[in-house]
Amino acid sequence: MSIQRVAIVGGTHGNEWTGIYLVKKFQNNPQSIQRSTVETTTLLANPKAIALNQRYVDRDLNRCFGQDDLNDTTLTGYENTQARTIATALGQTHTSKVDFIIDLHSSTANMGLTLLPASYHPFNLQLMAHLSEQNPDVRVCCGVQCNQDSPMLRSIVPLGCTIEVGAIAQGVLDAQRFQQTETLIHSILDYLDATNQQKIASTTHSSLMIYQSIESIDYPRNSMGELEAMIHPQLQGKDYEPLKAGDPMFLTFAGETIVYEERSIVFPVFINEAAYYEKGIAMTLTEKQHIKLSQTA
Amino acid sequence: MSIQRVAIVGGTHGNEWTGIYLVKKFQNNPQSIQRSTVETTTLLANPKAIALNQRYVDRDLNRCFGQDDLNDTTLTGYENTQARTIATALGQTHTSKVDFIIDLHSSTANMGLTLLPASYHPFNLQLMAHLSEQNPDVRVCCGVQCNQDSPMLRSIVPLGCTIEVGAIAQGVLDAQRFQQTETLIHSILDYLDATNQQKIASTTHSSLMIYQSIESIDYPRNSMGELEAMIHPQLQGKDYEPLKAGDPMFLTFAGETIVYEERSIVFPVFINEAAYYEKGIAMTLTEKQHIKLSQTA
Repeated sequence: MSIQRVAIVGGTHGNEWTGIYLVKKFQNNPQSIQRSTVETTTLLANPKAIALNQRYVDRDLNRCFGQDDLNDTTLTGYENTQARTIATALGQTHTSKVDFIIDLHSSTANMGLTLLPASYHPFNLQLMAHLSEQNPDVRVCCGVQCNQDSPMLRSIVPLGCTIEVGAIAQGVLDAQRFQQTETLIHSILDYLDATNQQKIASTTHSSLMIYQSIESIDYPRNSMGELEAMIHPQLQGKDYEPLKAGDPMFLTFAGETIVYEERSIVFPVFINEAAYYEKGIAMTLTEKQHIKLSQTA
Repeated sequence: MSIQRVAIVGGTHGNEWTGIYLVKKFQNNPQSIQRSTVETTTLLANPKAIALNQRYVDRDLNRCFGQDDLNDTTLTGYENTQARTIATALGQTHTSKVDFIIDLHSSTANMGLTLLPASYHPFNLQLMAHLSEQNPDVRVCCGVQCNQDSPMLRSIVPLGCTIEVGAIAQGVLDAQRFQQTETLIHSILDYLDATNQQKIASTTHSSLMIYQSIESIDYPRNSMGELEAMIHPQLQGKDYEPLKAGDPMFLTFAGETIVYEERSIVFPVFINEAAYYEKGIAMTLTEKQHIKLSQTA
């Protein structure tokens, strides 16, 4: 497998500054993201939202890349139009454009350095295993939709990932996370270049630990849909830590604790993500899975 | 001095949820904020911004309360209109409306539990001293404009304060800070009630430690006004900690450290507040001051 063209995308959400300012930095110094066998382009995906310092203008751009939506020309909102433009520019539906997409995001949840692969493609998973081994702080989280039918920007080509860093408030820069994300991007480019040159076999790793999303949990709400509780202080910031029966999940405004009641131990992520209140997501529960990797290229 | 009417205000900034949801909680249970000698009202100050989950619609409401702006009827933006309505409803310019305002805010900076008094009025400072003594986590920070000519909502009556809690991202609830803010509000109401009933003398404290704002510092920017640096990782989250000559302040995107160069030791606050990027404020430098309190009522 040869990866010749990479796109680094920032500002898919206009108020997630880590990716926006990294892309601006790369645009000011394009040489830094080239490798001998890899040509890298950059893109600020949602310029109007970036200018407004908002997640989106009409609709979440990172939910506009499902094939049905891309094909539906009656959807004329800013983000739907922008998604079609981006899919045409980067996607592989026409002549091959890019082979690999890195989409840069940040979260108000304590996501640390999370990689969300675009697919379970063996090459992708080998890369994730390589990055996890190189930096033990890196975690791999697979969405419920981890394939090319997902509505995410990263899914327009089979190879690539979202980098989700946090906790970072919207509309700010966090220098430490900025530098860690930059390092991770360079590690990806180095790996792609090394595998292209067969300096690293893309079959090195035999297994990978992932956090597999199972379901999302909403906040307790009243019949009007209004919040009745907050993330419990004992769960706040505890992304990727085990949650077991009896552990506090929510604290109602009246001061009552709501506990987790299932038997299975889960690992919540995206706990208290600001952008997910409107999506009805207080957290996403994941399971830890060790997956066996194909060692035939 | 007798404080009979108190207003608790939330949502002056529409994306600062701590105050918004505390006010909603109080509105659902108005009895909880009444005291035998104190009548408490609540207000959501910027309903349109709250509905949009934005700081403001046209202009920062908490900069619209200067007398000149309140008198200038040619200012017809949403927040200017709203400010005049609120000043008329709560302010003392006409018949006395409320005696004391508590304005609830949150910050993406690590402000902990900060009180920003509306004025240096002896009664106000005695209250601040009482609250600091009761809870050592409470800090008192005086703005450059700590008087009735300030453009802040809290300044429309001489007594009262802003409660500024953080670090909290915009558009989220943090249960721990929510509860701490609620406790602080009840402590204020209890104090006002106790002094009304002369159970506490409002001349108890002889001194108060405050953080007095001296000046605000902008981020390094290029000639286009674009950011060239971030808060240095060693300064991030270090609000209220001493900053001395040679200490890192900023990290440029190119990776260079910019240090603090003045001789005087200062205590930065509002470090990396999201809403202050557009105001050209990376942090506000304060001096620690022990002020002597009048012990004659």
